[in-house]
Parts: sequence; C-alpha cells; structure tokens
Amino acid sequence: MSTSSTPTTTLDPDSARQGYDRDRLVRVAVLGVGMMGQDHARRLATLTAGAELVAVSDVDVARTDAVAQEFGVRAIHDPRAAVTDPEVDALVIATPGFTHEDLVLLALDAGKPVLCEKPLTTSPETSRRIVEREAELGRQLVQVGFMRRFDAGYQQLRALIASGDHGAPLFLHCAHRNATTPPNFNSEQLMLDSVVHEVDVTRYLTGEEVVAIRVIAPRSTAQAPEGLRDPQFVIMETESGILVDVEIFVNTTFGYEVRTELVAERGQARIGLPEGMVTQSAQGWGGSIPKDFKERFGAAYDTEFQRWIDAVRNGTNVDGPGVWDGYAAAAVCAAGVRSLRTGERVEVDLGPRP
Amino acid sequence: MSTSSTPTTTLDPDSARQGYDRDRLVRVAVLGVGMMGQDHARRLATLTAGAELVAVSDVDVARTDAVAQEFGVRAIHDPRAAVTDPEVDALVIATPGFTHEDLVLLALDAGKPVLCEKPLTTSPETSRRIVEREAELGRQLVQVGFMRRFDAGYQQLRALIASGDHGAPLFLHCAHRNATTPPNFNSEQLMLDSVVHEVDVTRYLTGEEVVAIRVIAPRSTAQAPEGLRDPQFVIMETESGILVDVEIFVNTTFGYEVRTELVAERGQARIGLPEGMVTQSAQGWGGSIPKDFKERFGAAYDTEFQRWIDAVRNGTNVDGPGVWDGYAAAAVCAAGVRSLRTGERVEVDLGPRP
Amino acid sequence: MSTSSTPTTTLDPDSARQGYDRDRLVRVAVLGVGMMGQDHARRLATLTAGAELVAVSDVDVARTDAVAQEFGVRAIHDPRAAVTDPEVDALVIATPGFTHEDLVLLALDAGKPVLCEKPLTTSPETSRRIVEREAELGRQLVQVGFMRRFDAGYQQLRALIASGDHGAPLFLHCAHRNATTPPNFNSEQLMLDSVVHEVDVTRYLTGEEVVAIRVIAPRSTAQAPEGLRDPQFVIMETESGILVDVEIFVNTTFGYEVRTELVAERGQARIGLPEGMVTQSAQGWGGSIPKDFKERFGAAYDTEFQRWIDAVRNGTNVDGPGVWDGYAAAAVCAAGVRSLRTGERVEVDLGPRP
Amino acid sequence: MSTSSTPTTTLDPDSARQGYDRDRLVRVAVLGVGMMGQDHARRLATLTAGAELVAVSDVDVARTDAVAQEFGVRAIHDPRAAVTDPEVDALVIATPGFTHEDLVLLALDAGKPVLCEKPLTTSPETSRRIVEREAELGRQLVQVGFMRRFDAGYQQLRALIASGDHGAPLFLHCAHRNATTPPNFNSEQLMLDSVVHEVDVTRYLTGEEVVAIRVIAPRSTAQAPEGLRDPQFVIMETESGILVDVEIFVNTTFGYEVRTELVAERGQARIGLPEGMVTQSAQGWGGSIPKDFKERFGAAYDTEFQRWIDAVRNGTNVDGPGVWDGYAAAAVCAAGVRSLRTGERVEVDLGPRP
Repeated sequence: MSTSSTPTTTLDPDSARQGYDRDRLVRVAVLGVGMMGQDHARRLATLTAGAELVAVSDVDVARTDAVAQEFGVRAIHDPRAAVTDPEVDALVIATPGFTHEDLVLLALDAGKPVLCEKPLTTSPETSRRIVEREAELGRQLVQVGFMRRFDAGYQQLRALIASGDHGAPLFLHCAHRNATTPPNFNSEQLMLDSVVHEVDVTRYLTGEEVVAIRVIAPRSTAQAPEGLRDPQFVIMETESGILVDVEIFVNTTFGYEVRTELVAERGQARIGLPEGMVTQSAQGWGGSIPKDFKERFGAAYDTEFQRWIDAVRNGTNVDGPGVWDGYAAAAVCAAGVRSLRTGERVEVDLGPRP
Repeated sequence: MSTSSTPTTTLDPDSARQGYDRDRLVRVAVLGVGMMGQDHARRLATLTAGAELVAVSDVDVARTDAVAQEFGVRAIHDPRAAVTDPEVDALVIATPGFTHEDLVLLALDAGKPVLCEKPLTTSPETSRRIVEREAELGRQLVQVGFMRRFDAGYQQLRALIASGDHGAPLFLHCAHRNATTPPNFNSEQLMLDSVVHEVDVTRYLTGEEVVAIRVIAPRSTAQAPEGLRDPQFVIMETESGILVDVEIFVNTTFGYEVRTELVAERGQARIGLPEGMVTQSAQGWGGSIPKDFKERFGAAYDTEFQRWIDAVRNGTNVDGPGVWDGYAAAAVCAAGVRSLRTGERVEVDLGPRP
Repeated sequence: MSTSSTPTTTLDPDSARQGYDRDRLVRVAVLGVGMMGQDHARRLATLTAGAELVAVSDVDVARTDAVAQEFGVRAIHDPRAAVTDPEVDALVIATPGFTHEDLVLLALDAGKPVLCEKPLTTSPETSRRIVEREAELGRQLVQVGFMRRFDAGYQQLRALIASGDHGAPLFLHCAHRNATTPPNFNSEQLMLDSVVHEVDVTRYLTGEEVVAIRVIAPRSTAQAPEGLRDPQFVIMETESGILVDVEIFVNTTFGYEVRTELVAERGQARIGLPEGMVTQSAQGWGGSIPKDFKERFGAAYDTEFQRWIDAVRNGTNVDGPGVWDGYAAAAVCAAGVRSLRTGERVEVDLGPRP
Repeated sequence: MSTSSTPTTTLDPDSARQGYDRDRLVRVAVLGVGMMGQDHARRLATLTAGAELVAVSDVDVARTDAVAQEFGVRAIHDPRAAVTDPEVDALVIATPGFTHEDLVLLALDAGKPVLCEKPLTTSPETSRRIVEREAELGRQLVQVGFMRRFDAGYQQLRALIASGDHGAPLFLHCAHRNATTPPNFNSEQLMLDSVVHEVDVTRYLTGEEVVAIRVIAPRSTAQAPEGLRDPQFVIMETESGILVDVEIFVNTTFGYEVRTELVAERGQARIGLPEGMVTQSAQGWGGSIPKDFKERFGAAYDTEFQRWIDAVRNGTNVDGPGVWDGYAAAAVCAAGVRSLRTGERVEVDLGPRP
C-alpha cells in the first residue's frame, strides 16, 4: 500500500516550475457545505483522482462539523482561515454568492487555485475587480463553475460550430426547466442562478460576447409561488447577430431539462434530448426525465473536477472558464435584470479586457 | 359498372334540405393550375371519394389546356366563368392571392362552396369584406386552406391542450423551415405565405386570438437571396398571455421542417419530429428529411379535401377553418409586416365578429 | 351535381380494351361483414375514390341487413349469389378463411376482380388450385390482402434493399405484438393469422422464397389463455440464406406493434418505430402505442383499396400481391405449424410456378 | 501538497481487519499492456481515485518499457514476478486468455485482489479450478472484467426486471456489432470474445443460469475475412425458459453497437439506443455511431475500476462479477462452440456451486 510519500524527481519542467509534484495529491478544502458543497466534498473524497479532501468550512458550525466527520477531514469554521491554511493547496468555493468576492480575492493573494461556483460574484463591478486582480498576477488561478462546458453534448455542439460544416450559427434555441424552486426564489434569481448558465453556454458555443438582452414574460404558471414570474423568455444577441432565445421555466413539476438547439446556415443540431432506457407498457412508450441537475449534469461535474485537479497537479493554468467568463456572465445577467424590470432591450458593454 | 345515375330517394333530411344528393359526385372546378392547383386537381381526380374534377381554369391559356387534357376535363379560360358555370358545383381557388377577393365574393353570390387556398385575401380589409358578406348569407360556404388543421400531429396537440391534462398553455415554440425559396421571394412574403400558417396554428391550438406580434431578425444566412431577411424570429402574444415564438427560415438548404412544441403548466409536447425508416451506415444513424411541404403535409391535404367534399355532399356547412380564420390570420400578418419594418411590437385589433 | 352518367368517349385504348369506363364507378360487394368486412365497407363507401359500395353479403342474415342499411346498399344473403350478381363489378372477400377457395374460384369463373383477405385459403393445396386456375385464365384477377405491402415503412425498406446501398441482406428481425387475442385463439392461429404477414413481408422485402422454418417457444406469458403457446419465436431461411426471426407475441397487454429490422452487409434499418406526438409530464417522456392493427395499418389499408380500385378501373391487372404470394405464404405457414408440433426445422418446397 | 503519508487511526473495523488503510492509495500493476492493458494503465494513472499505478508488465519487453516510461512507473518483465512483488497491492490482468489461469491462481496464493479481463480462462475446466481455489480461501479476491454490469443501461434494465413491474421476462433480443475484426479472427472467437458478454448479460439481467445454446449461421457477409462465419445467430435458454437471441456481427463496417431488448409479460424495454447530439443537414437527420467499445463502454470501464478500487481500499470483498460468473460464461461459450460445429442445440450443465 503506497503512501505516495516518496519525494520524486519531477522530470516535467513545467510542473517543476510551478512547484507542484505530480506524485502528490492536491489537498483541497471545500468552502460552503450546503447541498452543492457537500456534493463536491463527496466528489473530491471518492471520485477525483489526484485530489485529497482535507477540510470543509462553513459559517454554520454544526453543519461543518457533521460534514467533516462524515468524510474524516478537518472542520474549519472560518472560511477565510481555510483559504490561508498552509495544509490546504486548493479551494472549492460553494458559499453563497455574496461571499465570493472576498474569498476569491483572498485566494488570489495566497496564490492558491480556486474552483468557484457560479456566480463569480453578484455584480459586474465586483467580478471586474477580480478580473483585474488576477490579471495583475499574470496567471490564471480561478476557474468558474460553469460545468456545462464539461458536458459531452455541449462539447459536441461546440465542435460542430467550430468545424464550420453547417455554416455560421444563426440561432440558439434554449430551454432550461426545473421541477420546482426552493421557497422565496424570486424573478431575479431566475436570471442570476439559471439564465447565467445559458449566457455562458452562448459565449462558449459561439465564441462571441452577448451585446444585448431582453426579457419577455408570458402568463405565469399557476404552480409559481407568489411573486415569481415563471416562466420567462429571454432573448440575447451576440456580436455577429446570432439570436439566442431561452425559455426559463423553473416550476414545470415534471423534472429537470436543459436543451440547446443550434440553427446554422446549412444545418441544425440538438443536444439534451432524452437518453437511457426506453420502455413500453400499458402507459405507452417512453423513458424517464432527470429529476434534477445532479442527474443531468453529474458526469459534467465529475469531469470538471477531474480536469481542474489535473491542471492544478500539473502546475498549469486551469483550463476551464475563468474570471473573464464569470465577469461577462455577470454583466449580461445584470442587464437581464434591468430588462426584466423595464421590459426594454438592454445593451451590454463589457469594456476592454485587461 | 355503375353510373351512379339512378335517382335515389334521399332519406337524410339535412342533405335533402341543402339540395344535394349523396349518391351523386360533387363536380369541382380548380381555379389556378400552378404547382398547387395542379396538385389539387390530381387529388380531386384520383383520391377524393365523392368528387369529380370537371374543369380547370387559369388565365394562362396554354397551361389550362394542358392540365385539362391531362385530366380529361374542361378548360375554362376565364376563372370568373368557371365560378358561375352551371356544371360546376364547388370550387377550389388556387389562383394568386390578389384575385381571391373577387372570386370568393362571386362564389358567395352564386351560393357555391369554396375551398380557398390561403391567404383568404391579401389584406385584412378585403378579408373582412368577405366575412361580412358570408355573414349576410347566414351560412358557411368558404373554407380556407389551412391544411395543418387536418394533420394528425396538430390534432393530437390540440386534443392534449383541450384535455387540460397538462394545465394551461404557456408557450408554443414553432419552427418553419424550407430548403429554398423561389426567386424574388421577399421579406414580407415570409410573413404572408409562411408565418400565416403559424398564426392559424396558434389560433387553432389555443382557441385564442393573437393580440400582439413582433419580429426580430438575427443575422441573415449567406444562402438568402439579395434583399431577403432570412431567417426571422416572430413573437406573438395571445389573449391570455401565451407566448408564441416562430423561427421562420426558408433557405435552410437541408429540407422542409415544421415543428411545434407546447409548453404547458405541467407538461410539454412536441409534434413534427422525424418519422419513417431509421438507418445505420458508415454515415451514422438517422433518416431523411421531407424535401417539401407536399411530403410533410400530403396526408393533411388529402384529409382536408376528403372532409370538404364530404361536407359539401352532405349539404352541411363546411367544417374546416372559415373566413373569420382567414381574416384573423390576415390581420395578424399585416401587423407582423408592420413590425418587420419598424422593429416594434404591434398590437392587433380584430374588431367585433359579425 | 354530376351523375357521372354522360357516356364519354374513352380515349385510353388500354381501358377501352379491358371494357372498363374510367368515368364510371366500380360497383363493389363486400362478402363477410364481421369487424374486418365492415371496416372495408366503410372504406369503400366513404374513402376510396372511384368505388361505389353496392352490396354486402354474409351468411349472418341479421348482420347483413344491419350493415346494408347503415350504408344504404343491397343486402345479399348468399355470398355466392353476390359473386355472380350482374350489378356487382368487383368483390372484397372478408369471410372466414375456409370459404375463400369456393368464392375465389367462383369469381375467377365470373371473370371478376377480387380483393381477398388473407389467408388466400387455409391450405397450400387449395391455394395451389387457385394459382392454377388463374394461370389458365392468363390474367391476374385476384389480389391477396397483404396490406403491409402498401405501408410506407415497408416500401421504404424494400427500396433500400433494392438499391443495394447497404449490400446484401443478412437478417430480418421482426416483432409482431398484439394487446390481446380473442377467446379460443390457438397456437396454430398464431402462425396462420399473424406470422403469415411476416412470411409475406419476408418475400416482399427480399424477393426470395422461404425454404425452411422452425418454431421455438420460450416460457409462455401468464396472460396467455389456457392452451395457447404465447409468445413464440419463428426462424425462417430464404433461398440465399437470409435469416428471418420473428417474435410473435399476442397478449402483450400494452398495445399493437409491428417492427422490422433489416441487417445488411454494410448497414441496418428499422421500420415500425413509435411515431406521433411526444410528451413530457410527471410520468416521464414518451408517446402512445397503437391499440390495434387498424391504427397501425389504417393508411396501408386505404392505399391498398385505392390502388386496387384504380387498377380495376383502368382495366389493368391488379398490381398487389397475387395468388402465388397467397400460396407461398400458405405453404410456409403449413410448414410452420408442423415445426410447432415437432420442434424440428421443416423445409418448404413450393414446386414449379405455373 | 499532501503526501497522504500520515498514518491514520482506522476507525472502520472492517477495513482494519482486512489490513488496508483508507488513506493510502492502492498500488496496482497492470499485466499485459496491449491495447486493453494500456487503456487500463491510463485509467488507473489518471482517473481512478484511490489507485496508484506502480508497475506494468508484459512478456514483450520493449512494449513494457515504453509503457512504463510513458506513465513513469516500473517495468516488470515477468508477469509472475509482478504478481508477487511486495510493492504491488492489486493486479489488473489483461494478458492473453491462455495465461490467465496461472496468473490468477498465483494471485490467489498471494492473497492479492485481481481484476481479470474476460475470459477468466479459456476452458470451463480451468475456470472451475479457480472457482474451487477461491472457495477454499473463503474470500472473494477475483473480479472478472464483465464491464457491462457497470453500464447505466444494463443497470436500469436489471432494476426494471427486478422490480417485477413488467412481469416475468420472456425474451432478450440482443445485437452485438463491430465495425471490423482484427486479422485471423475466427468463428470460435466470435463466441469466446464477443458472445461471452451476452452470456454474462443474460445471467446478470435474469439472475438465471443458461441451460442450452444453439448457433445458427445465416449467409456470411462479403466483408468477412476468409474462414470467418460472420454474422451468427445464437439462441440461449435460461432455467425458467427465457429465450435469448443474439445477433453477433463483427464486420458491419458501420461502427460498434450493443443493444439489448427485453420483452416481458406486460412490457418491453430497450437499451443501447443512439445517444448524443442529433443533427440535420443535407444528408438527413441523425447522429454518429460509436466507433468502438471504448466509446460505447468507456464510462462503464471507469465505473468498474473505481468500484473495484473502492472495494479493495475498503478491504471488502470485490462486489463485481466473480469467478463463478467467469466459469459459467466459459461453460456456456464452450457449449456454443460445440453447437457452432454441429448445428445442434447443446445443453449446459454447470455442476454444483462450491
């Protein structure tokens, strides 16, 4: 049984330069152990090769202790302390969005790699500050948790667009459906928590920035809680004039579904179609619908984490979506919230990229 | 071999009242024998039980004579004369749209059943005139050629909505794609010739009028001829706030496709998905795409004609879409053309129904 | 209103030669008005252009009278009298199989076109007799009701095989599933009433005769009535060595399904896949399964009848499956019944074709 | 950066008893580094959490050295030495089948966990010897590489059968298709290398042993190399009379495909249907077919390895298919080879399970 403890001569000049040892495990702390953070802790503890979960941290002391015990790791009650802990090599941030700016900046100061759940921060201004701080460091340390970029379907679709086989993209028709929302979910969260993924998908697939957004709301479903406009219809325009429409509907009652359809000059493509076993019975023919995002995107999260740890171990820059992606998404979503209030088309200006 | 000539005692009081004899064939003239009219002539001559094609009529004399000879029927060079011909019981109008008003009004005067290809007329005002004229007659004589109402898919979707099983409708996502357009096809024709079907589909499926429309155009495909904005994106709102979006794209190069997706409060449904043989080969797995509307909607046209002839034979009112449907579609499309020019949302007011 | 009574100058020399008048309707009598015969009567009365239902005939006097009244046609209580009736031009035979030989031979003597529901007769010997009698007449008068040949899917599959694009066929995997069977349905009827279609399909698709058959039975379903081996598994071999396996399962409880999968040297193809509207709801995603053969093959029956009447009107030979097809199917099924009893592979020898 | 070296107090009494330390990595040697072994080496080195690839071993010295260098691990030129090496905790055996018996028995003697690629051995007799040897040890050390048991589709299908919702299984219709075979592939290998998977799938899904097998060969494809009967059709019967048919076709030219269809008393289910992006273009609609087993079953292999390492780390018995599964598959395949030669149905008798 190996302890992986033998110091090895690192032959790879790149990883040597970065100071990482490929034979060692990356010691990770998970900050925020709500539903998402616990899921990530389990992933790091059991599934991600090369990672070692060493600590969890949350302002909720009882929860932190319980999760720490479950995984046999340290409980650190102050997330800021976890960031700077010398026994922690890298950080997964799954705390509430309003804490992200502070924690990410602290991690940048500490020179530690971060995988930060979306949103990067809750405003374009604060995200922009992180963009600038990382640019000063001259090295990409922060990956934003846009896990769809690691989903096989989105990768196939992006490759198809990049191939040019179907000509230039003209439309992306997107649907983002949830079975239900948590209590107190409001209309702006639809934009900031859900549509934010479609914003990143648009940028990832087309390689273009979003320049304008408008939100139109049809009648609301009777299933929507008081005060929530659900569903909504979001229309984005990219630099070259690609039109992206998003049906965002978070109280479908029937399950979780995320689909994207590309319409290009000479072809069309769809991802997110039903998969898995197809049955026939007295009820008809068909299959089951994923019940939540974990079922739909579980493999994408696994891949996201594996590739992030690989990059950290190899001492290379993280190769996933970075702070500029987080900033651009925040800026588009902020414009979307304005459009939701006014009903008008709102333009987006990202300013120069540092 | 029967000649169907024996006078029969008509027992059905309804048909007796209307003066039709169920054992006789309905003598039909087809006005306009371009591609569409020829197709209808063939349908009446070979497929529609109870119909007898007796004449064809077109201002193009040579074409009229050729088609008449092909089917062994009379050539009538003046379409107005065909309408009033005593040997003609019923009329199919497939002439250019600008001629419809005159011919339909003439048929109403003659008290003859008409199946009029869409558009009913080229403006809401002229369509309204027909609505009022038919209302004066107190009897439905005109059916408008919205053949999708006879497509099994649309009928299934309508029945689903009517059942209420999925709750109230919230969205219809529609796509209408053609391989190519004829020369000189312009941006307004996209609205008047293609989107008009989606307007009727919206009204047929939801049972509501369209109250507003707006048109947004993404970048145009390089395949579009000079001067044609293609594709376009049309957004309609119905009385209860259902949002209907339509991708209209008429130079896809890859074939003909018409899809509709319903999103309701507790379910979702799609029609127009690929059907037929599915193959596997070195090119992958898949199937073929209909090349044109005849392949996609051939069975719907057959059913439309059979049911129209059945109604005419039985002396009952035609049961298909009528002049109000034609008028409403014309009014919405006229508003759509305005929106296409201004980029603004345009409201639609149909006025009172006579 | 036309009576179609005006004698026309028949310009088509072919139809003149055959003695038929294209402007007249073919007067048809339906023999046997059980479920199938009534369905055909309705089809001829309302859907088949060029046909006129003039009489129905069944040994069940009350049923004959009721159906005759429903359609407003003559009731003829002796089917043999209907065959020879001078006011009857053509015959649809939907009586029980054991009566077919007599009625078809009578029709051949009368020189009248026949559409005979399968089976042509109940034994290879009697079918052979009809083959020889028709051969003496030198003219094809009898079409056997293998309606699948008029189903779009089978036609696509046959065209694919004929194209040679996928190389030579190697397998046909077939499934034939019914929801339930009528009382007293026995194991041999599975072969004679159901597998008979797969025998014809095999011959139609491959253009080869079946040279051997064997039947293997897995455990029976608990839903099968006493005495019925259900399901069964039938394996046929064609002249060139194509292997055809058939799952025949007639108490599935879930609906009616007929699928065929071709495996060829360089490709594979499937027909009979689910079609129509696809929904999503709390029950999952999917669609409905046809409840019976009428739903699955309704359009095929319509086409079969239209093409048969067209051929009769044009005075040409019927172009559908003929008596040799009926005989070959009967011979293979008889061998299948032997295999069912013995468990052995049974070879089939059709003898020379007259 | 952690070295995971701190000795931890193992709280889990089970793992303490087995002598494994949960915080340490399992040191694995891969025996046989052909295509399959290299793939497994890469998997252990980069994807399997808790594993550490420490050595590779192959009788081909040059290949061993090259692969060892690629992964930065030891090259051991004698596979038997790798088995007994004290720095190796567990073994993956991917050497040719004829070497398996010797290596597995040696590993059993050494008390080391083994993941042995199928076949367990090349004859029922030798497999039986391993079954008995492991039974003497009283502890499951050997897992056989039937990776399909870790495929989500097979797991869904098994759960469906186990639920009883569809009643008792009656049929499994299976297809196993490869694009091409390596040179010198012969008819018996079709059974031993390919059908062996379907044998295990049958046992895994139904929980029953196979009691008889017969092989029928249709005409061979022109693409088959000299001497290879390809395709073949294999029919198995289980204890309760479930019929399992397998189309095995290894020169399809079009790709890799493994499908299984269950037919049960009140329902039907399919797995292995096409997944992933669906496109439309001038070539029609459709998607791509996996090119090989790595693409089709890559995720199953990943899961198989992760769960095997998890079990080894936890010091529990391996939970995957064991030596009895390997023996039963070998016995059925040996009977299949006999049937292939004689054309007869061959019964299988496994003898008592130790």
